[in-house]
Amino acid sequence: MKTVFVKDVNKLTSGESITLMGWAQEIRVMKNIGFIILRDSSGLIQATFRKENKHFADLTNITRESVVSITGKIPEKVMSKLGMEIVVDSMEILNRAEVPLPVGIVDEVEVDFDTRFNNRFMDLRKPEHHRIFIIKSALLWGIRNYLMNKGFTEVQTPKTVSAATEGGAELFGVKYFEKDIFLNQSPQLYKEMLIASGIEKVFEVGPAFRAEEHNTPRHLNEFTSIDIEMAFSNHEDAMKMLEESIAAGVENFLNNVPEAKEVSLVKEKPVTPFPRITYSECVKILKQEGVDQKDGEDLNNEGLKIIGKRFENFYFIINWPTTVRPFYTATLDDNKNFTKSYDLQFKEIELTSGAQRVHNPDELKSRIEEKGLNSDNFEFYLRTFRYGMPPHAGWGLGLERLTQVILGLNNIREASLFPRDRTRVFP
Amino acid sequence: MKTVFVKDVNKLTSGESITLMGWAQEIRVMKNIGFIILRDSSGLIQATFRKENKHFADLTNITRESVVSITGKIPEKVMSKLGMEIVVDSMEILNRAEVPLPVGIVDEVEVDFDTRFNNRFMDLRKPEHHRIFIIKSALLWGIRNYLMNKGFTEVQTPKTVSAATEGGAELFGVKYFEKDIFLNQSPQLYKEMLIASGIEKVFEVGPAFRAEEHNTPRHLNEFTSIDIEMAFSNHEDAMKMLEESIAAGVENFLNNVPEAKEVSLVKEKPVTPFPRITYSECVKILKQEGVDQKDGEDLNNEGLKIIGKRFENFYFIINWPTTVRPFYTATLDDNKNFTKSYDLQFKEIELTSGAQRVHNPDELKSRIEEKGLNSDNFEFYLRTFRYGMPPHAGWGLGLERLTQVILGLNNIREASLFPRDRTRVFP
Repeated sequence: MKTVFVKDVNKLTSGESITLMGWAQEIRVMKNIGFIILRDSSGLIQATFRKENKHFADLTNITRESVVSITGKIPEKVMSKLGMEIVVDSMEILNRAEVPLPVGIVDEVEVDFDTRFNNRFMDLRKPEHHRIFIIKSALLWGIRNYLMNKGFTEVQTPKTVSAATEGGAELFGVKYFEKDIFLNQSPQLYKEMLIASGIEKVFEVGPAFRAEEHNTPRHLNEFTSIDIEMAFSNHEDAMKMLEESIAAGVENFLNNVPEAKEVSLVKEKPVTPFPRITYSECVKILKQEGVDQKDGEDLNNEGLKIIGKRFENFYFIINWPTTVRPFYTATLDDNKNFTKSYDLQFKEIELTSGAQRVHNPDELKSRIEEKGLNSDNFEFYLRTFRYGMPPHAGWGLGLERLTQVILGLNNIREASLFPRDRTRVFP
Repeated sequence: MKTVFVKDVNKLTSGESITLMGWAQEIRVMKNIGFIILRDSSGLIQATFRKENKHFADLTNITRESVVSITGKIPEKVMSKLGMEIVVDSMEILNRAEVPLPVGIVDEVEVDFDTRFNNRFMDLRKPEHHRIFIIKSALLWGIRNYLMNKGFTEVQTPKTVSAATEGGAELFGVKYFEKDIFLNQSPQLYKEMLIASGIEKVFEVGPAFRAEEHNTPRHLNEFTSIDIEMAFSNHEDAMKMLEESIAAGVENFLNNVPEAKEVSLVKEKPVTPFPRITYSECVKILKQEGVDQKDGEDLNNEGLKIIGKRFENFYFIINWPTTVRPFYTATLDDNKNFTKSYDLQFKEIELTSGAQRVHNPDELKSRIEEKGLNSDNFEFYLRTFRYGMPPHAGWGLGLERLTQVILGLNNIREASLFPRDRTRVFP
């Protein structure tokens, strides 16, 4: 049905007859002339109605945000401030919008968060909200493209699971016929099982579910997780894959999304390799700055703010203490108190955790028990390590968090079409 | 860590020292010479140990499927029947496999379905099982690539939802904090809401959940759904997008996966457009053939077998009766008893359903009520139609079903890494 998008009108020659379809964002009628500002997903154009046009009288009846199909010609001299104009020959109203609108599109009125998200379909018509998801899609495409070119296989692992994957309690329960099972909080154990299965480089992009009670501007209870795992690889290999993927993703949206450069905090393809700083160096800096930071404990927000000021945007904190990392994290060859692990940071915000993993089944079992977990519950996972598990490394990256920090959004919900949080499961 | 894959060895020159990493698939020791058949994700190579090699004695100790790192040189004259050979200088055992193996890799022993899937990590080491997922990934990549090039935006919609999306009862319940909600059976209503939000072309690849009681070789309770929706489009536009996507996916795996042509039932890029046959034509044919087919009722398996014989592989059955299609399906302009809908078929098997959708809110409400559903439950969805909803069309395609039929797999579970069915939620 639709063949011409607003953004392509300027590529056509004047006098050509075209049909545009979109939303009537504004309607203005004067004595001898009338206008509709027509919006489609690609931009805005002025549709001009001369008084002699049979639809001129209809203009007073069209409601804002109605869907219209307009056929007309591009004038020789464009008079519209928008730089795009069509002089209307005929018009069809495809769907009439009710009044009043639940949320305005162009009005400067402040709308509260709940009203916006209860009416998300209208809220997303605002170009600045719409654009977030165009950028998110382009960012993901750049990342995927990089991974596919590096020989990765895209996989789909189950989201309904019979056991917790990381031993945490933050799980949503599912009634699965007669069984009580869970929504998966991470594909971690599955992607490791695929490493054991000989698919040497796997990645997955899918939902992850966390039944975390807290309600913050940086967490969602359902988010999009980009996960990779690589056989015969160490943490350095995985870090390289991460920084190069992100650089490719940023490059893709900067090159392909109009106005992306204006709204992104990252104005050009990030330089790789990203800077690295060890956890121990961070602790030393923080102690010098007078922060109450204990050795072997996680860095708190105050500390991360101080460290983050030293870097322009992306950087890695490496070699985290064994105490604060999951049981499957490999330790340094020369010091069991520290791990072959890393966090990718953007200023003060953590984006990713990754590591080389333990690949020896006996060591893995001990590490599970050291964390106070019952290794019997992990038998389905442990046994995949007993029949030839290669060394491997990987990471998991939250797509909404990445989009949030790159675009400098105050709240991660802005980067989710229909966010799920402690209280919201609607629409 | 790993820099050379088996498949690339033949591109190197003889005498070069390289390190290969993989699984010891077979070990053979004779008096003066020994061999390991080394397998990695890309292929098989013979690693030759001469008697004077310090690791020669170790060969009797290595268990099958242990993970090894082998450094050696490509000989001037390859003696191995595999056509690939490395003469070993040194070897490191990275992880020793226990004996016996729970499932063999090269043995011809028949293993029952449960044993295979309980040990899926071993079962996937078989090249013919491994290859299914390489093809599935390449098929999906070709489809995605086509859609991205057509200007689609990839989206992620929630999998935890407060209401059933299509009014069916086949839902899994989720305990979401204090609320009782569901796993989504389809992104249908969400992608339509995104059409209302002005993102004119959306697609999603994600899990869909169906609490269907039956247990068949063609159904999974969790599967990967590829969904698209297009604004200002009719069913013909959506069918074109579907046939072209599939053709691009098939072309991609045929060109890029070794041996794909041998295992695929579709040996070359399918010709588009796919043939079309109307539902009414099918009924007429079946009546002629003496099948008990009633007008306005779904085509049964017997009927679909007869129709399927008339087509080589992919074809569309179009213009289904209104009675057998969901409430959101648009009817033909000149006959309300039939719809602007289609099924994509592969021989006798249904792959996809799609349609142009109803975009008028009053008509949609009536259609919901005609189906005996309570329109109050759809108010969150209906209201998105009242403020400017364009005409739109789309489809949903099960990736595992598509992979199954293209590769001629007897059971859809073969196309799922970790299948979920009526009784299986493990591993």
